[in-house]
Amino acid sequence: METKILDIVAKRWSPVAFSDKPVNEKILESLFEAARWAPSAFNEQPWRFIYARREKDTAFKKMLDTLVPGNHEWAQHAPVLALSLARVFFTYNGKPNPTAYYDTGMAVGNLLAQATYMGLFVHQMSGFSAENAREALRIPDEYEPIAMMAIGYYGNAKTLSGTLREREKKPRTRKPIEALIFRGGFPAG
Amino acid sequence: METKILDIVAKRWSPVAFSDKPVNEKILESLFEAARWAPSAFNEQPWRFIYARREKDTAFKKMLDTLVPGNHEWAQHAPVLALSLARVFFTYNGKPNPTAYYDTGMAVGNLLAQATYMGLFVHQMSGFSAENAREALRIPDEYEPIAMMAIGYYGNAKTLSGTLREREKKPRTRKPIEALIFRGGFPAG
Repeated sequence: METKILDIVAKRWSPVAFSDKPVNEKILESLFEAARWAPSAFNEQPWRFIYARREKDTAFKKMLDTLVPGNHEWAQHAPVLALSLARVFFTYNGKPNPTAYYDTGMAVGNLLAQATYMGLFVHQMSGFSAENAREALRIPDEYEPIAMMAIGYYGNAKTLSGTLREREKKPRTRKPIEALIFRGGFPAG
Repeated sequence: METKILDIVAKRWSPVAFSDKPVNEKILESLFEAARWAPSAFNEQPWRFIYARREKDTAFKKMLDTLVPGNHEWAQHAPVLALSLARVFFTYNGKPNPTAYYDTGMAVGNLLAQATYMGLFVHQMSGFSAENAREALRIPDEYEPIAMMAIGYYGNAKTLSGTLREREKKPRTRKPIEALIFRGGFPAG
């Protein structure tokens, strides 16, 4: 990577080895506070978050149980689970909000930056049952569950099973910038 | 705001008064480089960006002309316009990617953090013609244009028309955290 970018962006990654060290309430609050200040179309602020702490909330197990087995295996050790949701209709006119997911993604971008700055790790999962989450967490129809996230401190990769340990070692990869950024439009032809 | 959050999150906002000072190419690159490192479902990296510089690219006018008049009025002064897009089908199996917009939002979250850190301002707009953008910028069917963004340095609010000057003065507002974050699920009943 030649182009210099912020450490909190460059060093963020999604581990599977979480420590069971709890996350201080104030620190957790700062993550959601950061999310709150994202921009959104018509300032709708469509993002919502449901969270639960492993040691304190019965909802933690409910959230954990929505995960596919491959995620359940490692996410059970994280001290906090959170679910991102989008309100998919505008409040002001009841019509579908085409950027609800996009705006919620920007809010989560803020959350990730804040978390990384606080020394925390966040691993988001789309491998969970949205239907079961809706039922277990009383999610009204106008909200769509998007991603379940494990939040906590880094643990010890040695405690992982063989498959997860291999996964943890893999370096992050991204497409080259030329495949993502186009000056003046998509290439002709 | 009692909870302490990162300055680059707290101080980001979307002005309408842009300076015509150009953005250095390396600095602009760092914004896209930051976007590149966002997480995404199955590491699909569905985000794409098209950009143009006012002084150098004929596409700048094409992009500007997709804007609704209320945006055109102020965005014409920004030195850079960029369009965020999402590839809405998975590359690996051709099926719809339900988190394409969300993941693209996270990439833009990174871009905004990097831009704010570099002293730049970004103002995103959903008020543009996606249809005209598709035509003018050769956007293939599998990509959806999401937000047009003006990127540049802060200008002088005194140069704005009366309506825009009033708009520029309004403080940012957000819903209270209690309306956005739910511990253990949505409230019963």
